[in-house]
Amino acid sequence: MTKPPRYQRRRRSPPGTPPGTLTADPDAGETRVRAIRFNAEGVSEDDSLAPCAPGSILWLNIDGLADTDLLQKIGTSFGLHPLALEDVVNVHQRPKAEEYEAHQFIVLRMPEPGQDGLHTEQVSIFLGDGFVITVQEHAGDVFDPVRTRLRNPLGQMRKRGADYLCYALVDAAIDAYFPVLEALGEKLEQLEDTVVFDPDAVDMGDIHVLKRELMSIRSAILPMRDVVATLQREETQRFSDNTRLYLRDCQDHAVQLIETIQTYREIATGLVDILLSSQSNRANEVMQVLTLIATIFIPLTFIVGVYGMNFDDMPELHWRYGYPAVMGIMGLIAVVLAIWFYRKGWLGRR
Amino acid sequence: MTKPPRYQRRRRSPPGTPPGTLTADPDAGETRVRAIRFNAEGVSEDDSLAPCAPGSILWLNIDGLADTDLLQKIGTSFGLHPLALEDVVNVHQRPKAEEYEAHQFIVLRMPEPGQDGLHTEQVSIFLGDGFVITVQEHAGDVFDPVRTRLRNPLGQMRKRGADYLCYALVDAAIDAYFPVLEALGEKLEQLEDTVVFDPDAVDMGDIHVLKRELMSIRSAILPMRDVVATLQREETQRFSDNTRLYLRDCQDHAVQLIETIQTYREIATGLVDILLSSQSNRANEVMQVLTLIATIFIPLTFIVGVYGMNFDDMPELHWRYGYPAVMGIMGLIAVVLAIWFYRKGWLGRR
Amino acid sequence: MTKPPRYQRRRRSPPGTPPGTLTADPDAGETRVRAIRFNAEGVSEDDSLAPCAPGSILWLNIDGLADTDLLQKIGTSFGLHPLALEDVVNVHQRPKAEEYEAHQFIVLRMPEPGQDGLHTEQVSIFLGDGFVITVQEHAGDVFDPVRTRLRNPLGQMRKRGADYLCYALVDAAIDAYFPVLEALGEKLEQLEDTVVFDPDAVDMGDIHVLKRELMSIRSAILPMRDVVATLQREETQRFSDNTRLYLRDCQDHAVQLIETIQTYREIATGLVDILLSSQSNRANEVMQVLTLIATIFIPLTFIVGVYGMNFDDMPELHWRYGYPAVMGIMGLIAVVLAIWFYRKGWLGRR
Amino acid sequence: MTKPPRYQRRRRSPPGTPPGTLTADPDAGETRVRAIRFNAEGVSEDDSLAPCAPGSILWLNIDGLADTDLLQKIGTSFGLHPLALEDVVNVHQRPKAEEYEAHQFIVLRMPEPGQDGLHTEQVSIFLGDGFVITVQEHAGDVFDPVRTRLRNPLGQMRKRGADYLCYALVDAAIDAYFPVLEALGEKLEQLEDTVVFDPDAVDMGDIHVLKRELMSIRSAILPMRDVVATLQREETQRFSDNTRLYLRDCQDHAVQLIETIQTYREIATGLVDILLSSQSNRANEVMQVLTLIATIFIPLTFIVGVYGMNFDDMPELHWRYGYPAVMGIMGLIAVVLAIWFYRKGWLGRR
Amino acid sequence: MTKPPRYQRRRRSPPGTPPGTLTADPDAGETRVRAIRFNAEGVSEDDSLAPCAPGSILWLNIDGLADTDLLQKIGTSFGLHPLALEDVVNVHQRPKAEEYEAHQFIVLRMPEPGQDGLHTEQVSIFLGDGFVITVQEHAGDVFDPVRTRLRNPLGQMRKRGADYLCYALVDAAIDAYFPVLEALGEKLEQLEDTVVFDPDAVDMGDIHVLKRELMSIRSAILPMRDVVATLQREETQRFSDNTRLYLRDCQDHAVQLIETIQTYREIATGLVDILLSSQSNRANEVMQVLTLIATIFIPLTFIVGVYGMNFDDMPELHWRYGYPAVMGIMGLIAVVLAIWFYRKGWLGRR
Ligand SMILES: [Mg+2]
Ligand SMILES: [Mg+2]
Ligand SMILES: [Mg+2]
Ligand SMILES: [Mg+2]
Ligand SMILES: [Mg+2]
Ligand SMILES: [Mg+2]
Ligand SMILES: [Mg+2]
Ligand SMILES: [Mg+2]
Ligand SMILES: [Mg+2]
Ligand SMILES: [Mg+2]
Ligand SMILES: [Mg+2]
Ligand SMILES: [Mg+2]
Ligand SMILES: [Mg+2]
Ligand SMILES: [Mg+2]
Ligand SMILES: [Mg+2]
Ligand SMILES: [Mg+2]
Ligand SMILES: [Mg+2]
Ligand SMILES: [Mg+2]
Ligand SMILES: [Mg+2]
Ligand SMILES: [Mg+2]
Ligand SMILES: [Mg+2]
Ligand SMILES: [Mg+2]
Ligand SMILES: [Mg+2]
Ligand SMILES: [Mg+2]
Ligand SMILES: [Mg+2]
Ligand SMILES: [Mg+2]
Ligand SMILES: [Mg+2]
Ligand SMILES: [Mg+2]
Ligand SMILES: [Mg+2]
Ligand SMILES: [Mg+2]
Ligand SMILES: [Mg+2]
Repeated sequence: MTKPPRYQRRRRSPPGTPPGTLTADPDAGETRVRAIRFNAEGVSEDDSLAPCAPGSILWLNIDGLADTDLLQKIGTSFGLHPLALEDVVNVHQRPKAEEYEAHQFIVLRMPEPGQDGLHTEQVSIFLGDGFVITVQEHAGDVFDPVRTRLRNPLGQMRKRGADYLCYALVDAAIDAYFPVLEALGEKLEQLEDTVVFDPDAVDMGDIHVLKRELMSIRSAILPMRDVVATLQREETQRFSDNTRLYLRDCQDHAVQLIETIQTYREIATGLVDILLSSQSNRANEVMQVLTLIATIFIPLTFIVGVYGMNFDDMPELHWRYGYPAVMGIMGLIAVVLAIWFYRKGWLGRR
Repeated sequence: MTKPPRYQRRRRSPPGTPPGTLTADPDAGETRVRAIRFNAEGVSEDDSLAPCAPGSILWLNIDGLADTDLLQKIGTSFGLHPLALEDVVNVHQRPKAEEYEAHQFIVLRMPEPGQDGLHTEQVSIFLGDGFVITVQEHAGDVFDPVRTRLRNPLGQMRKRGADYLCYALVDAAIDAYFPVLEALGEKLEQLEDTVVFDPDAVDMGDIHVLKRELMSIRSAILPMRDVVATLQREETQRFSDNTRLYLRDCQDHAVQLIETIQTYREIATGLVDILLSSQSNRANEVMQVLTLIATIFIPLTFIVGVYGMNFDDMPELHWRYGYPAVMGIMGLIAVVLAIWFYRKGWLGRR
Repeated sequence: MTKPPRYQRRRRSPPGTPPGTLTADPDAGETRVRAIRFNAEGVSEDDSLAPCAPGSILWLNIDGLADTDLLQKIGTSFGLHPLALEDVVNVHQRPKAEEYEAHQFIVLRMPEPGQDGLHTEQVSIFLGDGFVITVQEHAGDVFDPVRTRLRNPLGQMRKRGADYLCYALVDAAIDAYFPVLEALGEKLEQLEDTVVFDPDAVDMGDIHVLKRELMSIRSAILPMRDVVATLQREETQRFSDNTRLYLRDCQDHAVQLIETIQTYREIATGLVDILLSSQSNRANEVMQVLTLIATIFIPLTFIVGVYGMNFDDMPELHWRYGYPAVMGIMGLIAVVLAIWFYRKGWLGRR
Repeated sequence: MTKPPRYQRRRRSPPGTPPGTLTADPDAGETRVRAIRFNAEGVSEDDSLAPCAPGSILWLNIDGLADTDLLQKIGTSFGLHPLALEDVVNVHQRPKAEEYEAHQFIVLRMPEPGQDGLHTEQVSIFLGDGFVITVQEHAGDVFDPVRTRLRNPLGQMRKRGADYLCYALVDAAIDAYFPVLEALGEKLEQLEDTVVFDPDAVDMGDIHVLKRELMSIRSAILPMRDVVATLQREETQRFSDNTRLYLRDCQDHAVQLIETIQTYREIATGLVDILLSSQSNRANEVMQVLTLIATIFIPLTFIVGVYGMNFDDMPELHWRYGYPAVMGIMGLIAVVLAIWFYRKGWLGRR
Repeated sequence: MTKPPRYQRRRRSPPGTPPGTLTADPDAGETRVRAIRFNAEGVSEDDSLAPCAPGSILWLNIDGLADTDLLQKIGTSFGLHPLALEDVVNVHQRPKAEEYEAHQFIVLRMPEPGQDGLHTEQVSIFLGDGFVITVQEHAGDVFDPVRTRLRNPLGQMRKRGADYLCYALVDAAIDAYFPVLEALGEKLEQLEDTVVFDPDAVDMGDIHVLKRELMSIRSAILPMRDVVATLQREETQRFSDNTRLYLRDCQDHAVQLIETIQTYREIATGLVDILLSSQSNRANEVMQVLTLIATIFIPLTFIVGVYGMNFDDMPELHWRYGYPAVMGIMGLIAVVLAIWFYRKGWLGRR
């Protein structure tokens, strides 16, 4: 039987730590920085932390959270709020969108590429004037298509602002759940078939594990829908009207994901009833066989017991046709009982 | 046992595709265009893509999504938004209504005619100034009554605007679910009867499949109610006050459908309890028969066993009326036990 | 076992019928018209369709929907909206309140008098300037007390406006559910007693049927609460402030009905658990009897079998007190087992 | 087993009675009136119906609803609205707060003192200019502490207005549920212990009765929370800002009550699962004993049966050590089976 | 089996006590006062009740509620509202935030340090102009990190206002639930493993107790989320814009806690199904063994019984190979039955 997945532990500073403290997780990945600078004319990549020239847009991606000093330095140089920085380091945040004066702050969870998609990685996004900063737990992400589109001289992305880049990253994170959910859907479909056609091969634990996986994906995506809805609202000044149209498209995808998860959950819950019912049916079937055999033979065994008694005076024993008569009577009893069972439907449906 | 329906796979571009990209599904149906142009004076039909003369209204219907170039061309010529066009091609969208500057965009799911109604087809509707464009997955739809009404010189439809045509299409799509739901209702009624009067002939899987079908219809209609509610709201300028009255009527129908589905789901859920209980009753009945027989004959078999023992010195064996006495005593025991069972109600109610 | 009630089929025009079409149901009752005209001075009754003199109020009641031409004529003469008229004819509408420019339109469902109250009849009410028109599926309704009050020269009703008459009709329709629900409550109370004190006499199907009846009443009353709430809202100009107070009283009754239904549903749901548990208890009890008897006698039967063997050399058989010794040992075993069962509580609690 | 509580019947006028009609219930208690008049200087008590002198406040309490003429007279003299008066007489109203032009009208349900608190009594409160009128079903209430505080020359109550007196009455009615709920909590705790440690002593009906009692209290308190929330809202001019602070405190208590009820309900629902599971465990245990005994002795009984056969030629019967050999083999079989059962865990855990 | 936790009794004044009365609980802890006074320059600690010098901030912490006179005195001197003071003394309040004219009043529940975290202690917080007063049930709390930060000359806390101190206390109370919930999570994980891999070692009562613990934590944290949301709202003037950012961070933590609890509850609920199913499986397994043995041996025992009969004329008994023939036939029957069972899957899967 599959082992239920472990709960994601929230490694976090001990209660009472002053807010804004950056505590490096001992297991945190090595920090590496990669900058992409672009405008309508061209794109360049380096690993400098320098801010962008006016008219250009900087995408600073940071993998690994070990070097909290560097994070602090970047925070100071780009005006990132200490509370936001703290959330960057305390991974296992719930996805959220928070507006600070100097920047929009977004926390997302994206499926880790190359894995089964059930382990998610926190990615924090800062959207400020002319820059987007993304911070991930470790190297490897779902943003490569965005990088490709930026490097493509014919693509439209270079001509758009930082808000559109930010949208593209959010969209990539959400879209990455579609294959994950499709895999889960296939697993569920298989489980459903097994429950219906070969219930003995399943057990309740398998359904439980699948429900746990659905719960875990849902807990990542549900708040991401709210994140996109928040970003789309008119008060947030950081997104142009045009980008907001794209965010609406993105929200649409999040809603589709959630609806699919909800449907899968309802199906999985229904499987519980089928399995319980099939177990119960199984027990009934076994019981019927036992009852059939016992009910026919127990009375007969009594009768043969009677004529095995050693009384001096048992006239039947000395009758000429005593033996065949008793055998015949017993055969008759068996036939009558069998007919009775048949009429009750205990023989016909098996 | 019926096989549970397969999940509708959402064929979609891979994650990371730039928004607005039109990727043709390899299985998409051949693209065919049919235009109906009408005003109060008359109606004409052709397959040209030309926009309509002022004062006339154009209904452009497109079946099949294979030819993305043609779709792109139509999109450019009528000013359709790329994000909307992308949704047209990525079928299995959730129904929705989105307002763009140049047009209203509506996605619906309609039951495929001639089928069991459980497979739905996406139809996308663009309502702009003087035109309605509908795009379907493949030929065949539920709009024939609307076409008939347009061709009827006495009908009112030609005198109304594009918004009324759009309403009529939405109304036709929603109304098409009534016969589907009626068929499901009959199926449910039959299942209910069987569960109540002949529970052995049902199994939990049948209830599960029916619940799955209800879930699938509900996931199409629930968002369609919201679509109609959105269209009806005053801010949307594309619908006249009069047409809005008709949309209210249409919303009424959607609400009726949803309520019926909800009722059916509650009934189906109740069937689960009846079935489990009937299985349990069945087991009890079998158990009672076994217990009755065993409890009467096991002690008797012991007694005859006693007098089958070969001890040298068993005085009863040599008594004159030993044999009939033992037989009589055993008969008495059987009668007493039978009375006791009767009093416990194990004999009376079967 | 009671047969579950049939689903109310919604006879309706086929999908695609133009809105506002009046299609007579072939089973519709014969159309009969009855007018009551009144003002503070007096009341007169006839069957003319003439509108009312100014200063007087007309209540036009129509029983039976067979004569769609007459309905159309009345519609034209009183300015009734075609969409509303269509709903009048398509019975099995969900209760609703819709405001049109020329009149308020209300659809209610009232229990049919003289029946078990579980079949409801649609009544459509038009409230316009100086008139109230009610249209019912067939003759017989719950409005007789209102008629009596109108005919009573001392009653207050004649002095009030059409809005108050309309309130009185809505109130009568809602109040008519109280006796229906009381009967259901008695049925539930009886079922509850039986489940608790004589569970074998019930089966799950009975609970299911009662739940179905509650669902059916609820689906009629739930929207009627919303109807009254809508009528009470300040924007609706058709009801005076004073009448609105009366509508608040009426809403109160609807809320009481809904709450009672909700309570009944929770109780009925609880009965499912009791019944399942009682079935399970029953099975345990039967099982204990079987186990008791079998566990005591099976070993004893083995022992007597041993001394029924025909070995040449079985010394015990020739002992002087072999037979009584074996009988004594067996008695001892039986006693020990009985004590053990008693200690386990299998004997004490039955 | 406890009998489930009877449903509170709503004795009410027959449907169609004109609104505002006061119909005395034949079982209604005798009507008695008691007036308390007070201002900052002093307090006086009498049974006159005279309105209060300006500057003083009148609390008129009426026990018993038999004398509808007197109620009507009081209604006329204090300007009480007929619809409110009707609700006073039709007891078993749902708690509510309704504002009329001349007075605030409040319906509460209070536990009857000296009873188990599960029967509630309707108390109707009118708060007008300078007066509070309370009407109860019969003598005896939870307001004595309020009377004591009024009579206390040092208390603050006399200095406050009628609105504060009204608050104090509402507060007393709500606070009276705390002891009731505490008693239920103890009952639930006891039931929980029994279910966990001695499940055979409980049955599902006991849990059902407790759930019914919780439902009944909840249906009284839930609307009372809304009553207090309504009174607290700013639009209601009858309560001073200061009294509103006290009403907030009162609402707090209602919320606490509701939350406790909710918790109790969840616990009670959990007990259902424990009980079902414990019944199932019990059945398993019984079954294991039966299987153990039967599985060991049935094969052995077969073997001794073999050597009880009367064939002429059964060599084993004439072997020297045939008898002890068979006995030994049977002993061995018993031991092997016992070990096998032990390994399966059927012996170890009982 | 673990005993379910006792319900927290709400010790409270008897119903009818005038609002604002301070009744000391006989078990209340001894009252001890500790004041911390600080400004940007420094910090001093004493146990005087004197208000703070302007420009400084006072944190007055009171442990133990026995001395109601002292509480009354403090209340008068700082202008605390009597209703708030009453709530301070009546512990087991639901967490809440109430604004009074002279101060903000907050009630929280914090886990008691050094315990299993499932017993919570009420802490009441008054935030006024230049002061924060905290009142606890008894000595010992989760505020030590805040004290440490105040005493640290390099920390930022001294430079902030009373509102920030108040935030820090709320934050500490909420953060203290993280370790509690982590411990519960480990317990749940362990239970889940046991249920899945060794179901006999669990019983439903264990799941029930864990659910009870989750309910109890939830009932503390759920209202605390609302408290923080209330404090954060713009109308509340007591918190600066900057502190409000910190409160948002704090709310984030509350939401995380609630979501984790919700997830745990769903998992625990799923365990119920697994356990029931595993019990049912177990019963089936036992039943199969019994049926297997009985079904094979009961017919055979009948056959040997036949040849144990004492009829004079049983020719088979005198056949030469009668005995081996019967033995062979019985062997054959056993083999056929075993094959049949194998085919039914009763032997293969165990
Ligand atoms: Mg912190
Ligand atoms: Mg990464
Ligand atoms: Mg999470
Ligand atoms: Mg899209
Ligand atoms: Mg997307
Ligand atoms: Mg995309
Ligand atoms: Mg869908
Ligand atoms: Mg089509
Ligand atoms: Mg209609
Ligand atoms: Mg329609
Ligand atoms: Mg149920
Ligand atoms: Mg269920
Ligand atoms: Mg239609
Ligand atoms: Mg309906
Ligand atoms: Mg009628
Ligand atoms: Mg009424
Ligand atoms: Mg009333
Ligand atoms: Mg169940
Ligand atoms: Mg009435
Ligand atoms: Mg009373
Ligand atoms: Mg109170
Ligand atoms: Mg009630
Ligand atoms: Mg309080
Ligand atoms: Mg349950
Ligand atoms: Mg009080
Ligand atoms: Mg403390
Ligand atoms: Mg609480
Ligand atoms: Mg944070
Ligand atoms: Mg915190
Ligand atoms: Mg469940
Ligand atoms: Mg369940």
